[in-house]
Amino acid sequence: MTKKIRIGIAGYGNLGRGVESAIAQNDDMELIGVFTRRNPDELTLLDDNVPVYAHDTILDYKEKVDVLILCGGSKNDLPVQGPALAKHFSTIDSFDTHAEIPNYFETVDQSAKPNENTSIISVGWDPGLFSINRLYGEAVLSEGTTYTFWGKGLSQGHSDAVRRVPGVKGAVQYTIPNEDAVNRVRSGALPELSTREKHTRECYVVLEDGADATEVKRAIVSMPNYFSDYDTTVNFITEDELKRDHAAMPHGGFVIRSGKTGNDTNQVMEYSLKLDSNPEFTSSVLVAYARAAYRLNQNGEFGAKTVFDIAPGLLSKKTAADLRKEML
Amino acid sequence: MTKKIRIGIAGYGNLGRGVESAIAQNDDMELIGVFTRRNPDELTLLDDNVPVYAHDTILDYKEKVDVLILCGGSKNDLPVQGPALAKHFSTIDSFDTHAEIPNYFETVDQSAKPNENTSIISVGWDPGLFSINRLYGEAVLSEGTTYTFWGKGLSQGHSDAVRRVPGVKGAVQYTIPNEDAVNRVRSGALPELSTREKHTRECYVVLEDGADATEVKRAIVSMPNYFSDYDTTVNFITEDELKRDHAAMPHGGFVIRSGKTGNDTNQVMEYSLKLDSNPEFTSSVLVAYARAAYRLNQNGEFGAKTVFDIAPGLLSKKTAADLRKEML
Repeated sequence: MTKKIRIGIAGYGNLGRGVESAIAQNDDMELIGVFTRRNPDELTLLDDNVPVYAHDTILDYKEKVDVLILCGGSKNDLPVQGPALAKHFSTIDSFDTHAEIPNYFETVDQSAKPNENTSIISVGWDPGLFSINRLYGEAVLSEGTTYTFWGKGLSQGHSDAVRRVPGVKGAVQYTIPNEDAVNRVRSGALPELSTREKHTRECYVVLEDGADATEVKRAIVSMPNYFSDYDTTVNFITEDELKRDHAAMPHGGFVIRSGKTGNDTNQVMEYSLKLDSNPEFTSSVLVAYARAAYRLNQNGEFGAKTVFDIAPGLLSKKTAADLRKEML
Repeated sequence: MTKKIRIGIAGYGNLGRGVESAIAQNDDMELIGVFTRRNPDELTLLDDNVPVYAHDTILDYKEKVDVLILCGGSKNDLPVQGPALAKHFSTIDSFDTHAEIPNYFETVDQSAKPNENTSIISVGWDPGLFSINRLYGEAVLSEGTTYTFWGKGLSQGHSDAVRRVPGVKGAVQYTIPNEDAVNRVRSGALPELSTREKHTRECYVVLEDGADATEVKRAIVSMPNYFSDYDTTVNFITEDELKRDHAAMPHGGFVIRSGKTGNDTNQVMEYSLKLDSNPEFTSSVLVAYARAAYRLNQNGEFGAKTVFDIAPGLLSKKTAADLRKEML
């Protein structure tokens, strides 16, 4: 390996920290710096030797960074940063607002392509590795049904929704796949499953002083979109318990394609993830796709891409010949 | 869909029949014909309307076939047919002699590239979808171990080995993953597993008249390479039982990548297949990759390829825009 791939990180929350950590596991990459909108002096990285820069100065580093990994949120950060930064950098992001992906793709593409940058959007596990497995499943088993189950995992969006309920001081929400439903799908039975049958939701809530537990519980379980279509359990715990037992961010899930070939022959493909840290895993996926973005860019393939456009071999450190020899 | 992808099948055993069946599930493809070294009049296809041609006449159909799917065996057929036919056709094959893949790739590439054909070799599930998952696992979780388990499934090679034992009239052999070992791997424990700990082997044997069961059993379980490193059980059955209970060709298995991120965080990725018919599933994979070969060829990408070189999106009937909208 002569030259290392030079990576920049834009945004340093859980995801940014995970990316820092994942780059350290890949000796063909080096971390040029972290860009933050906070005061750079107040940021403590895992590795003291990595420089921290003010986000405002990011364009000064255009020539020093091969791929910029955007670690902001999908709601407020990426819709602005994605198109803005793809004008100047090849980028990777984890944009995950499914309904907005087509528009986001177009705006990033319009920035990246004329500026000869390569930007892979919506990278992670869902969207990301789960999407790829939905695609492989449907392409191979044309006649069949695809099922996605999530969890057991901490859902950020649902936890936020619980925290907005009056009387709630702190909360986490776990999404739990219904084991019985998963097993029915695995058997090849092709069940039709309602929302309620696929997942249950489990909340751990710290009440504010004087809040009415019954009323809080009622407000949670009846909340439209988030909880009313599910069987939800609400457990009240202390603030100490919340900190001690619910600080980790586990997640995971299953993509199962159940299909028929020939004369009604059952075939089942399953992909599953069991993640003790959702942000660290997502970060590891981002870093692997940064390698692909670099290679595509070197190869003159510009514009916005998704995981569907990336040949698996581009993700590996190994040469195509070594991959054929060692991994096929 | 204006023009259908025109497919030819070379060789009509279990795999060829599976390909015929899979093409019928994909309305963007049409089967131009089956090429056989047997007497074409003696072949009965699933669909009477599909023409059968003598293999000798195959070059007459050069302009009528977009992709030729080679359904011969890896031992004798493909090493000759692959390079010979890649001179004249874009091809797909399931070449699965792992150690020979690098050489085979080179010889097919030398035929395909100068003749502007696109040939994807070693397509199926192992090599194939399992290989892709080994690659994704290693690329995403740089620090970790990859485990491949096969089965429960009928192993053709091992069944043949049992049939060669003197006194054996008929036999099948099933490879069975050790559930305990699979569960240890799934737990993130990163166990070191011996060959004996990973799989057991189960044989169902019909004896020839007068054969010595004890001697046959001894010959099987002590056979080097095939059985001596495994715990093998041998069950003697009647010829009727063999036909009735062991005619199906189920297979499957697991690819598990267990790795660490950040500060010793466990992350487990698992891919599994549960196939009621191994050849029908393999055929379905071949057909999906035929679509990719056609598109790459249209796009001017010539030469030999493997599944590592194929972006997932190329396998789907859907447009890139529809995939982003519906499947990401």
